[in-house]
Amino acid sequence: MPESDRRPRLTPAVADVRRAVREAIDDVPEGALVLVALSGGPDSLALAAAAAFEAERAGVRAGAVVVDHGLQPGSGDAAERAAAQARALGLDPVRVVPVQVSPEGSPEAAARQARYAALLQVRKQEGAAAVLLGHTLDDQAETVLLGLARGSGPESLWGMHPRIGFLRRPLLQVRRATTHQACRDLGVEPWHDPHNDDDRFLRVRVRHQVLPKLDEVLGGGVALALTRTADTLREDAEALAHFAQEQVVDLVEHAEGGLSLDVGGLESNPPALRQRIIRLAVQSEFHTALSRQQTLEVSRLVTDWHGQGPIHLPGIRVTREGRRLVFVAA
Amino acid sequence: MPESDRRPRLTPAVADVRRAVREAIDDVPEGALVLVALSGGPDSLALAAAAAFEAERAGVRAGAVVVDHGLQPGSGDAAERAAAQARALGLDPVRVVPVQVSPEGSPEAAARQARYAALLQVRKQEGAAAVLLGHTLDDQAETVLLGLARGSGPESLWGMHPRIGFLRRPLLQVRRATTHQACRDLGVEPWHDPHNDDDRFLRVRVRHQVLPKLDEVLGGGVALALTRTADTLREDAEALAHFAQEQVVDLVEHAEGGLSLDVGGLESNPPALRQRIIRLAVQSEFHTALSRQQTLEVSRLVTDWHGQGPIHLPGIRVTREGRRLVFVAA
Repeated sequence: MPESDRRPRLTPAVADVRRAVREAIDDVPEGALVLVALSGGPDSLALAAAAAFEAERAGVRAGAVVVDHGLQPGSGDAAERAAAQARALGLDPVRVVPVQVSPEGSPEAAARQARYAALLQVRKQEGAAAVLLGHTLDDQAETVLLGLARGSGPESLWGMHPRIGFLRRPLLQVRRATTHQACRDLGVEPWHDPHNDDDRFLRVRVRHQVLPKLDEVLGGGVALALTRTADTLREDAEALAHFAQEQVVDLVEHAEGGLSLDVGGLESNPPALRQRIIRLAVQSEFHTALSRQQTLEVSRLVTDWHGQGPIHLPGIRVTREGRRLVFVAA
Repeated sequence: MPESDRRPRLTPAVADVRRAVREAIDDVPEGALVLVALSGGPDSLALAAAAAFEAERAGVRAGAVVVDHGLQPGSGDAAERAAAQARALGLDPVRVVPVQVSPEGSPEAAARQARYAALLQVRKQEGAAAVLLGHTLDDQAETVLLGLARGSGPESLWGMHPRIGFLRRPLLQVRRATTHQACRDLGVEPWHDPHNDDDRFLRVRVRHQVLPKLDEVLGGGVALALTRTADTLREDAEALAHFAQEQVVDLVEHAEGGLSLDVGGLESNPPALRQRIIRLAVQSEFHTALSRQQTLEVSRLVTDWHGQGPIHLPGIRVTREGRRLVFVAA
């Protein structure tokens, strides 16, 4: 095959995916390794192709990890096929990792947990600087909408983080249509995961029914609007976490089997911060995440104090003693 | 008519609406006046009935304001009919106020603006302590969803405030189905606004097409989830506004034709707060609301400083001079 036929066509879609990957790895040291989490689907396949190209330009090594969830007949074959595609793109090393998905809880959550554990384990074994995930802007919009519908607070609206620990998501600003187009332009054949069309999955219903309806009624641009909102909410949440962290240091006193918080300090803060300080203190001491309801109940020992008795949370008893809130293991 | 026939039946719906009104007016001084903004539709009619009942119990006076937007033929008759219902419920004074809706901009926004101006004017004339608005939980969910789809930042997700200035919205935790039921239980006949079924209005499409689809796909409870999210986001936003306000006092220096901000202070704050401080300073000095894009551009004079030139915003020039950002009228 002549060299020119093997060179991928530089189309707008291919350029968009490459630019996103270039920006995502611009701080990876020369000679270091980045791993692409590859399912073989269009998003991660376009990501793998772009990573192969951009890593070489940046003097970085690029490899791939294919997680075989073993949830569908033939999943091993699909994994091997994806691995072969990664090798053909020039990625090295390419690892196929079978995982056991726990039968407990939601199947989507269990698969996700097994997948991330495997990815982070391979990252460690290979000493990679980062693991690149193929989530697109459309995935992000779905995540935000699912979180919103759950109503479990602002945290549920942050969507996925572009960089968290070793994980990076270069394509969060790239549309799904672009990764599909990039695969066509590059002549690579993505795997079609039947789960992506299975309406038993909530996310699939959101993708195929809710987002198109929203776009139809609201005049388009909903996915972009959702992700933009998630970005600013994440910033807001980071700022509040920063202040809560700063303050908790001043307000906490550690004691035998628990801790106490200064009531005056809690009083003088706005409710959103007061609640975060309480949650943070409890989390750090008891490794328990309080619900909004529980946090508000504790808050009332500060804002609506009339001598009421202790509050019993799972494993924790909270009492007000003079000007301190006292949390002890119960 | 014997007394017993005139007494409204106390059903669960009637009790829910009354309880919400009772809580909303619990700080109104005895003898003071509250005004119900009455359209004659089921939400505001149920509100008016509950206000008449609860005001008497609380030793407060309750009146009503009916705004006639003059946008539909017969709107004057509908307004007079609503006013007659208010009088029959015992409200006093009852005022009908015709307004001119500006033909410019969105018709919904123009009508809203004319309505609020009229309500606040009557409030002033009558010396009322508060104006009660009939927005329900469902209205709130629609507002949040519309804001979300616009993607214009967290502010667009706050929804309507339960109390802002003289305006109070007692029914934000009450479902629309409850106000409709309350009207039936009380035997009062609400006006049916044809605009509420007119699919040319975005809000009507959200109500009739988007929310039911979301409920169908996500398994119900979406309106409640949306409003709960709005509540916590509003709290978060209030906390950030509080900190921004605190800091802007320390960081601003006023000068001839403008002001300057301390770069070190801006640097040491998380992005969400830095952006709010910049917006707040500009707002207070130049009465201009910066967009997110403009704010980020100004921020880069702090976070990505490499000697770049001035930034030109509408009516304002921003330069970095040493360790200060200088904003002057341009």
